[in-house]
Amino acid sequence: MDTAATVKVLNFKDLGALGSAKKKESKSRIIIGEGVVTKDGLLEGLVLELFQRQLTSCVVITDSNVARLYSQEIVQHFSQIHKTSLIKLPPGEESKSIDSSVKILAQLAKLGFDKEGLLVLLGGGVIGDLGGFVASIYKRGVKYIQLPTTLLAQIDSSIGGKTGVDATWGKNQIGTIYQPIGVIIDPSFLKTLPEREFLNGIGEMVKYGVTSNARIFEELEGNSNFESLSELTHMIEPCVKIKAKIVSRDPNDSGLRSILNYGHTIGHSIEASSNYKASHGVSVLFGMLGEGWIAHELGLFQKDDFQRQELLIKRLLRKRNNNTQFRAILSLRHEMLAKFALSDKKNAAGKLRMSLPDRIGRMHINEDGTFKIPVSLDLFKSSFRYMKSIFSET
Amino acid sequence: MDTAATVKVLNFKDLGALGSAKKKESKSRIIIGEGVVTKDGLLEGLVLELFQRQLTSCVVITDSNVARLYSQEIVQHFSQIHKTSLIKLPPGEESKSIDSSVKILAQLAKLGFDKEGLLVLLGGGVIGDLGGFVASIYKRGVKYIQLPTTLLAQIDSSIGGKTGVDATWGKNQIGTIYQPIGVIIDPSFLKTLPEREFLNGIGEMVKYGVTSNARIFEELEGNSNFESLSELTHMIEPCVKIKAKIVSRDPNDSGLRSILNYGHTIGHSIEASSNYKASHGVSVLFGMLGEGWIAHELGLFQKDDFQRQELLIKRLLRKRNNNTQFRAILSLRHEMLAKFALSDKKNAAGKLRMSLPDRIGRMHINEDGTFKIPVSLDLFKSSFRYMKSIFSET
Repeated sequence: MDTAATVKVLNFKDLGALGSAKKKESKSRIIIGEGVVTKDGLLEGLVLELFQRQLTSCVVITDSNVARLYSQEIVQHFSQIHKTSLIKLPPGEESKSIDSSVKILAQLAKLGFDKEGLLVLLGGGVIGDLGGFVASIYKRGVKYIQLPTTLLAQIDSSIGGKTGVDATWGKNQIGTIYQPIGVIIDPSFLKTLPEREFLNGIGEMVKYGVTSNARIFEELEGNSNFESLSELTHMIEPCVKIKAKIVSRDPNDSGLRSILNYGHTIGHSIEASSNYKASHGVSVLFGMLGEGWIAHELGLFQKDDFQRQELLIKRLLRKRNNNTQFRAILSLRHEMLAKFALSDKKNAAGKLRMSLPDRIGRMHINEDGTFKIPVSLDLFKSSFRYMKSIFSET
Repeated sequence: MDTAATVKVLNFKDLGALGSAKKKESKSRIIIGEGVVTKDGLLEGLVLELFQRQLTSCVVITDSNVARLYSQEIVQHFSQIHKTSLIKLPPGEESKSIDSSVKILAQLAKLGFDKEGLLVLLGGGVIGDLGGFVASIYKRGVKYIQLPTTLLAQIDSSIGGKTGVDATWGKNQIGTIYQPIGVIIDPSFLKTLPEREFLNGIGEMVKYGVTSNARIFEELEGNSNFESLSELTHMIEPCVKIKAKIVSRDPNDSGLRSILNYGHTIGHSIEASSNYKASHGVSVLFGMLGEGWIAHELGLFQKDDFQRQELLIKRLLRKRNNNTQFRAILSLRHEMLAKFALSDKKNAAGKLRMSLPDRIGRMHINEDGTFKIPVSLDLFKSSFRYMKSIFSET
């Protein structure tokens, strides 16, 4: 296949259970390249190569915002090789529900979509999580690929097969681990990405820096303004590599992978208790502030590194105009946050557990060999006071 | 552990994806023994051995019929080692829905059930399928064991990790493949099993005979009256072994495993279009009649074996008093059956595909190396006329 010289193809074996037991298919392929989705003809070639055999049909699942910009073009690409249909959802976290899943399942059944078909998930984290969940439960699992259109999805949520929808009792509480057969990342989608969405991705970049790679953190310290897209796109590949490496070592999220949840125990609680008025990015940045503070209080996170993290996150938050979100977070009550935090998937026996850093680039390993450190409810509540104090300075 | 001499422990590796990626846990253990669940103390020992570590809590999921007879005793067994709760559902296929799943998920969340807990599925196929589905999607997967209480569940549905609920467009259309960590089979449950439930299991025994093991078929030919339970229980273990062997060779249902779907394309269509008035057993017996006839018409199923199958199934159906069900099946229209058959998971590109026998004990391999043989809609419709003719003789 003749693809542009800039296209990188990364093969990761053992990314866990796929829909098929055949060894040759039990890998996920991650393809990164400018224009790889949007450029004429390239996508069909990639998809054909991913499969190396005939599909019965394709269904593209997307939201109406992405659809307006890209769906016509992409449905047309796929139509040249397969019968292709489009399912459009309202944009936003509200679509990530059991009800939406059931509606999509019914639409797929009505389209006669079968186990030899391919679902194409075109969108950000919501479409990827929801569509992946649908792929995992429709007729006991069908094949799907991710075409992530946001920075967050490109560097994080599209990789690793975590699927899910939100429940009334918390975010991502219903879901599966079910790998896509491929992830095709085209940074040119980011040209149309709204400001708020950028911060979602940058939050995860900070996470990769603190949990796994001090050089990514240093790069962010040296350049936390991100005036132009080009300052960001070269960081996609190193982030993708960290994610894929960790997932391939722990596909089912039973150990190492929990380090990628740093900042997310508090982050998800903020999102859920603000009724998703606070974005994922701002919530996770606040979450890392809080969990970093907890790690420091527990004597784990070294003081200089804790302060470096605080400084970087303050700069990132200050740079953006997030007053509405800040007000939403400020008005939260810690009782509410605690309620959601107590349903976090890392907990056991009603006790909070978090993944916490020792240093920038290194996570703390607990006595029991896991990365899940017990945190008292009091310390959790105090971290919220600390977060509020940071906010009032910002 | 000191268990009765009659307890058999079968270990099957590679039964596919489990909740945990740890190698040592990636096997399903199947334990068979009279009294192994109901006898004091035995169950706790088995469960502790299955885990070899502490659990945070147990939740027993069952239906109100089974609960009336057994739940108090079993909840008490588990309570001696773990905090244990009970979730009770109305009996019957109506509980196998997305709505029931969501209710159970919410109850689990309310109980604070976490990823270190164990779901105990106590019941027949409905509880096993529904509970397994819930286990696979609660917090992206929790551990579960099956305690099957019906013959059907003990020899078939509890083994192999097929989970699911029914959709308006067909049976088992929403589900996952997600292995239990253990299946504990106690034939003493069958002492309280209603007559109708027995035939469900015997239908699957005929299936094992035709698809995989001529000796099982011969045993059924020699003894299709089953006046007492003891005539049946010795056949549980050979059936379990066939199922586990096939599943371990094809955990994700991408090839060989489809032979176990013999009789089920038509069988599921009868069940669904009769609105579940026709039982699974009677439907699958009719389904094997019809699919056997199709196999014979296609020149696959040899005449003498086809006739032996017809004779055995007629005897099994005649032996039981099934007039209400027969009337329900007789009143079905083939258009309705075809509608449901067209949503069967084995189909591709809108074409019916079935697994069909060559001989008693041997399934036909298609030109493409699969066990899925294309069947025209006309032949499907004709098979219904043949089934009706059998019924009018019965």
